[in-house]
Amino acid sequence: PKSVKDNVVNFTLEAKKLGQDDPRKIYHALKVGFAITVVSLFYYFQALYNGFGVSAMWAVITVVVVFEFTVGATLGKGLNRMISTCVAGFLGVVAHYLADLSGETGEPILLALFGFIVASILTFMRFFPKLKAKYDYGLMIFILTFALVAVSGYRDDEVIKIAQQRLATILIGSCIAMLICILISPVWTGAELHNLIASNMEKLGNFLEGFGSEYMTTKDEKSKEEKSFRQQYKSVLGTKSTEETMANFAFWEPSHGKFKFRHPWKQYLKIGALIRKCAYSIDALNNYLNPDILQTPEEIEEMMREACKKLSNELGKVPKEAAIGLKKMRKTSTPKTQLAETKEAAKELKRLLQDTSVWEKSNLLDVLPAVTVASILIDIVDCVESITEAVHE
Amino acid sequence: PKSVKDNVVNFTLEAKKLGQDDPRKIYHALKVGFAITVVSLFYYFQALYNGFGVSAMWAVITVVVVFEFTVGATLGKGLNRMISTCVAGFLGVVAHYLADLSGETGEPILLALFGFIVASILTFMRFFPKLKAKYDYGLMIFILTFALVAVSGYRDDEVIKIAQQRLATILIGSCIAMLICILISPVWTGAELHNLIASNMEKLGNFLEGFGSEYMTTKDEKSKEEKSFRQQYKSVLGTKSTEETMANFAFWEPSHGKFKFRHPWKQYLKIGALIRKCAYSIDALNNYLNPDILQTPEEIEEMMREACKKLSNELGKVPKEAAIGLKKMRKTSTPKTQLAETKEAAKELKRLLQDTSVWEKSNLLDVLPAVTVASILIDIVDCVESITEAVHE
Repeated sequence: PKSVKDNVVNFTLEAKKLGQDDPRKIYHALKVGFAITVVSLFYYFQALYNGFGVSAMWAVITVVVVFEFTVGATLGKGLNRMISTCVAGFLGVVAHYLADLSGETGEPILLALFGFIVASILTFMRFFPKLKAKYDYGLMIFILTFALVAVSGYRDDEVIKIAQQRLATILIGSCIAMLICILISPVWTGAELHNLIASNMEKLGNFLEGFGSEYMTTKDEKSKEEKSFRQQYKSVLGTKSTEETMANFAFWEPSHGKFKFRHPWKQYLKIGALIRKCAYSIDALNNYLNPDILQTPEEIEEMMREACKKLSNELGKVPKEAAIGLKKMRKTSTPKTQLAETKEAAKELKRLLQDTSVWEKSNLLDVLPAVTVASILIDIVDCVESITEAVHE
Repeated sequence: PKSVKDNVVNFTLEAKKLGQDDPRKIYHALKVGFAITVVSLFYYFQALYNGFGVSAMWAVITVVVVFEFTVGATLGKGLNRMISTCVAGFLGVVAHYLADLSGETGEPILLALFGFIVASILTFMRFFPKLKAKYDYGLMIFILTFALVAVSGYRDDEVIKIAQQRLATILIGSCIAMLICILISPVWTGAELHNLIASNMEKLGNFLEGFGSEYMTTKDEKSKEEKSFRQQYKSVLGTKSTEETMANFAFWEPSHGKFKFRHPWKQYLKIGALIRKCAYSIDALNNYLNPDILQTPEEIEEMMREACKKLSNELGKVPKEAAIGLKKMRKTSTPKTQLAETKEAAKELKRLLQDTSVWEKSNLLDVLPAVTVASILIDIVDCVESITEAVHE
């Protein structure tokens, strides 16, 4: 079984890589292990166990289910679980008593009916986009708790005791999970989102600067190896859903570090959308770095190269400056000065395009790639300007 | 409290809209209600209850947690839950006996240690991208079951009985959820993915056809209203993560309708990526429909309009034909014929660009938008060709 050995080796290598790339993932795993050990104490100590009975297992379940990688996700799940259990438990008890009034035969029918109605309505509510974003887990727990309390109430006349125990153990479990998540090397979703947006801006800048030095030198042997900047920006194209999820989690986080409670996380989504808009244009530019596309006549090439290089370099600096400003969370004038220089470079390129004497010798199809690159670069100026403005807000 | 009334009205309107847009969501809610009612029978009938005792609540929990909108998601969760509970329950019992051997004081320490190690390793494994995609839920349930069986084993010497009951009730709950999900108006992820890809191709086609008729007629009063085709394609830009999730769910689905078990769902991701690539270029085109951008001199405009219109229209037909082929799941030659016609139209546009007599009178900056549009349209030909090829595979 060589393949088994290979699999184990691969697995170990992958695990090592994951841990090296982000040691916080290892800490997270240890934190979960620790939290479960803490909550197991409820079983090990006779005194605590007597208080809760079998319900103590709910604390273990809660810790496993609620504990997530980031503080925002853990708080969101923990609060959803606590509040839902509380409200649904109360309603479950009420439903139980209502059903009890209707006598021996009516009781199971009424309980089944209540269960059906509550489950159907709440399941449908989970489709509402606004509720789904922040309270999806809470709605599920609501259905669960209501069904459990109402149903188990029929078998056991200690309904209220069961509801209380379940609530108490879930509160304990949630609090242990949330406290350990926050107190031991916490990972804040808000800070992650902040860094993601800043690093996405840097990736745009890297591409534009890299494009400037790479463009029209593709005949060189060296440049055949794919440059990293051409891969980096691709990750920016698909981050929309990640950003939205992160903004929803960040909503739950208390004040931490540079961020206040109720930091304007939605503004990050706006910046993210503008960055992506810019990345789409960059994706179009990236096609023109392929060496096998139509080549431009050499005389034109030389003239265009300088102007495009200049503009692309200046363009690249704008999102980089904006990223620095965002990281420091301070409004500076550097991006604005940089923007003015970029516009100057764009004007120069436009002047070159206007100069009829340059172009009349060649036919348009031959210079098409060069002209398109110039046009896209000029469009990106507006794009980058709107990013700078959004960051400034 | 007028605002409360407003909220209720809004809520009702939104619910009505959701239900009308996709009545399957209403059916799903009713299915969940029905499944919970069915599983409640375990409590209501004395005989069944005596067999399982308190563990019967696991069946209720399983139904609530496992029942998802699509068959693929439900099967994935159900199978993960059953297999994980089975394996982890067995290991939990083993751990319990091992700990038992070490005597009165050693037992809790060993159990806590086992719990810590298993929870930490499995939590870390949840970060592995491959495992996360398909078995994330299973890993969580593994931690949960192991902790529960090992821990509750210390209090109660009927460990094996507990493990067996938990396993049996979870099997029953999962099976009820999966059966009801499959038998009553099922929503197959595979079919959804198939339709999503086809409709994304149609959206590309709609944009390109719409662009052809809209382009360079923007001075018109009528066209000031935003056309729907300009909004449609935007939803294509961000579907990457949706498609990946759907492909992962579809993996679990058995043969249904036109799709066999182990249908090549990965091919859909490939087509999806190509469609998105094309949509990025289309996003660049969309900028040129704004009436406030640089206007082209009229003489050039007229010439370009016809050629661009032709190419854009032909281009639009290609993904639409491919979508029809995909929907019918039949390889036809229509997209290929259409592609040939499109290439002809592209050649015509190229000839126009090569014709020096047309362009020498004007400076390049004035005709820049027209030229860029032409260039992007020509690039989209390759894009659309690769989509057609990928669909053909």
